[in-house]
Amino acid sequence: MHIVLLSGGAGKRLWPLSNEALSKQFLKILKKPNGEHESMVQRVMRQIMETNPNSNVYVSCGSAQTEVLGSQLGNIETILVPSRRDTFPAIALAAAYLHYVKKLDKSETFVVCPIDHFVSNKYFERFSKVEELVKSGQNAIGTLGTVPTHPSDSYGYILRDGEKVIKFVEKPTINKAEELMRNNALWNCGVFAFRIGYILDRAKEHMKFDSFDTFYNRYTKLPKISIDFEVIEKEPSIGCAVYDELWKDIGTWDEFASQMSEPFLGNNVFISECENTHVLNMLDIPVIANDLESAVVVVGYDGILVSSKKGASNLKSVVDKIHLRPMYEQRRWGDYRVLEYKRDNGVSSLVKRIHMNVGQSMSYQYHEKRNEALVIISGKAIITIDDVDSVVAPGDVIPIPPKTKHTLLAATDFEFIEVQLGTSELEEEDIVRLT
Amino acid sequence: MHIVLLSGGAGKRLWPLSNEALSKQFLKILKKPNGEHESMVQRVMRQIMETNPNSNVYVSCGSAQTEVLGSQLGNIETILVPSRRDTFPAIALAAAYLHYVKKLDKSETFVVCPIDHFVSNKYFERFSKVEELVKSGQNAIGTLGTVPTHPSDSYGYILRDGEKVIKFVEKPTINKAEELMRNNALWNCGVFAFRIGYILDRAKEHMKFDSFDTFYNRYTKLPKISIDFEVIEKEPSIGCAVYDELWKDIGTWDEFASQMSEPFLGNNVFISECENTHVLNMLDIPVIANDLESAVVVVGYDGILVSSKKGASNLKSVVDKIHLRPMYEQRRWGDYRVLEYKRDNGVSSLVKRIHMNVGQSMSYQYHEKRNEALVIISGKAIITIDDVDSVVAPGDVIPIPPKTKHTLLAATDFEFIEVQLGTSELEEEDIVRLT
Repeated sequence: MHIVLLSGGAGKRLWPLSNEALSKQFLKILKKPNGEHESMVQRVMRQIMETNPNSNVYVSCGSAQTEVLGSQLGNIETILVPSRRDTFPAIALAAAYLHYVKKLDKSETFVVCPIDHFVSNKYFERFSKVEELVKSGQNAIGTLGTVPTHPSDSYGYILRDGEKVIKFVEKPTINKAEELMRNNALWNCGVFAFRIGYILDRAKEHMKFDSFDTFYNRYTKLPKISIDFEVIEKEPSIGCAVYDELWKDIGTWDEFASQMSEPFLGNNVFISECENTHVLNMLDIPVIANDLESAVVVVGYDGILVSSKKGASNLKSVVDKIHLRPMYEQRRWGDYRVLEYKRDNGVSSLVKRIHMNVGQSMSYQYHEKRNEALVIISGKAIITIDDVDSVVAPGDVIPIPPKTKHTLLAATDFEFIEVQLGTSELEEEDIVRLT
Repeated sequence: MHIVLLSGGAGKRLWPLSNEALSKQFLKILKKPNGEHESMVQRVMRQIMETNPNSNVYVSCGSAQTEVLGSQLGNIETILVPSRRDTFPAIALAAAYLHYVKKLDKSETFVVCPIDHFVSNKYFERFSKVEELVKSGQNAIGTLGTVPTHPSDSYGYILRDGEKVIKFVEKPTINKAEELMRNNALWNCGVFAFRIGYILDRAKEHMKFDSFDTFYNRYTKLPKISIDFEVIEKEPSIGCAVYDELWKDIGTWDEFASQMSEPFLGNNVFISECENTHVLNMLDIPVIANDLESAVVVVGYDGILVSSKKGASNLKSVVDKIHLRPMYEQRRWGDYRVLEYKRDNGVSSLVKRIHMNVGQSMSYQYHEKRNEALVIISGKAIITIDDVDSVVAPGDVIPIPPKTKHTLLAATDFEFIEVQLGTSELEEEDIVRLT
């Protein structure tokens, strides 16, 4: 089976844990069976490998996500979208990739799946049924629906007659949702199976292409539209498989809290006299939540959110007012946290704790104006300064004046403190990459 | 007039902003008329100088407070208590100091005043009346009462007949408080005037002394008891002055919030859809408070508190569970903030931002095991390393290996990042002070 995971862009709905550099599907805040934590994309990948071990998995994403994807999933095959244009263009690009690059026949099928849903393994076991709906020749498209637990006005519904879809109803009123439930409608999971040629034909309605490159270069000719509006809702022949276990969209803190096995996540959390309250703490300092009801407290590197649960899904306009640099980023070579960023009387200083994974290296670079200093905390690395290599170890202190070429290659897992100092803002722009 | 300010010990009631190293009276969280912020002790001192410019002011405190007092008040005269033994011993020591050290006659009077109360200048103007009650020969003790605004069960009451105190009632029931208010009782402000000899006589009931030194050395012979229980409630002849303006005990977050002119203090605070909610933010990252009612959110270097206002006065048992090093301290030479303290696989690292005031110096010191590195951020200082002086300026990086003697003298206001690295915990104990 060929499975294309749709990895969406940065969202602010889980601020302060997700930021422009880290979308919610990369947050390692879900508990694995062994007690460790994993991200949504890691959880989905693990579940696919457990249920469909012979499948080929591809991730459709923007280039900004390749570093964190590599760090979380290892050698995953990505299909990079040239620009963000919604799900129809992304799925069409995936079809072109499978046909022109992977040389699959147009009659072959593939399954697309979002990474937003917290589900049991049975969800992924149902993918073969979704695919079979198309392979059998009975349907142009296969889809997956889950049994609603309550009449929600936040989801899309599938009205069906046996395995045949009658119609899709997007975000109905509560009254209408109750009626849909009485008629055995399902929530639309956003999982679809298509034949490759079927999707390429839809794309050809907008532009010509005869190779992956021409498709890629003409990508912006495709309309910015979802697969639901462009394809699904226009197709009369759709089959529907049913999934009837745990299904949660964890796009809001309220929804996220509802899947937490304990009322807290992180260290040094003290909850007293609270009801239906969840606390997440990513910082090292303690958090006390006292005498609160139905609240969520989220302490992240980028900020602190305290909200009622019901109000926590409606914060975009407030979060949009915040314009600060990300305080935590995952990169190809590891990750870093900003310990302090300060601008005082024209002097900018930035203190980072940087962690490099064994075997990884930074680009060879220099800065025009910025002073840097590194203090090695743990591990070993080879440092190259103006083309001279040496080994650095804990306790070593390395000044890097402006215009000094430098890079690091981590010989072990490697941690250091970096202090940047400049007279203007320490933008990432003052960096000349030589490799 | 001789005024003795009683500066109490570290309290946890205003956690996370007060800690073992910083009592609540030193928190710079009160707004001055010019918009800047000052601490309670600075506010009280400013108000005394505005109302009684010719008075002599002394601060009774423990030795742990001398550095921060010097930093906040400059050359203030302190009367250091040898150990913490409640207000009667502290006031008796102050009397002994005024008589034996300052050579005041036993017939002279002094006024004692706590630093817990947020009041208008008129409060301090009333001190001369409190003193006059004793000087006139009409009373053994003078005291100050304020007109209650509501029947509280948290305060002490003064029942009176004109200027004469009938009796003191400590923390009555609400019903009893209502009755006291109907009888024109006042809240006890904790301000008292005594003749020096009167207090020395009370101390002589417990021990002999004929000099300040003998008094000081026998200090622990005095009972651990408040001035109220040991002296005030036993004395039949007490006069009472009345103060009838703003009076707030800001010992809890609820009380503190009630004197805030705006619902927030600090930078990057975003409050939406909240009612009767106050947010204090000492960190650089933003805080969003959304859809909360009667809550307080306090974000400090030492931790984060989110609580209902009514529950915020009853947190001692929760705060007592927290055993982490202070993340911010004020010192004689300036202050510092811990940016990160981490223990990983036997490696301890501590990153501080240190600010030194111009003209101040550190002690000359070395460490047995700890590696340090300094990265200069702003200002200039003279650094002495193994008896050799040099000037350091922004961008300079100074490694300090174990056993290296070192000190700094700030030639201007001076800021640097210090990284400490060791294999055990980085306790302050690994420091050998040479000066």
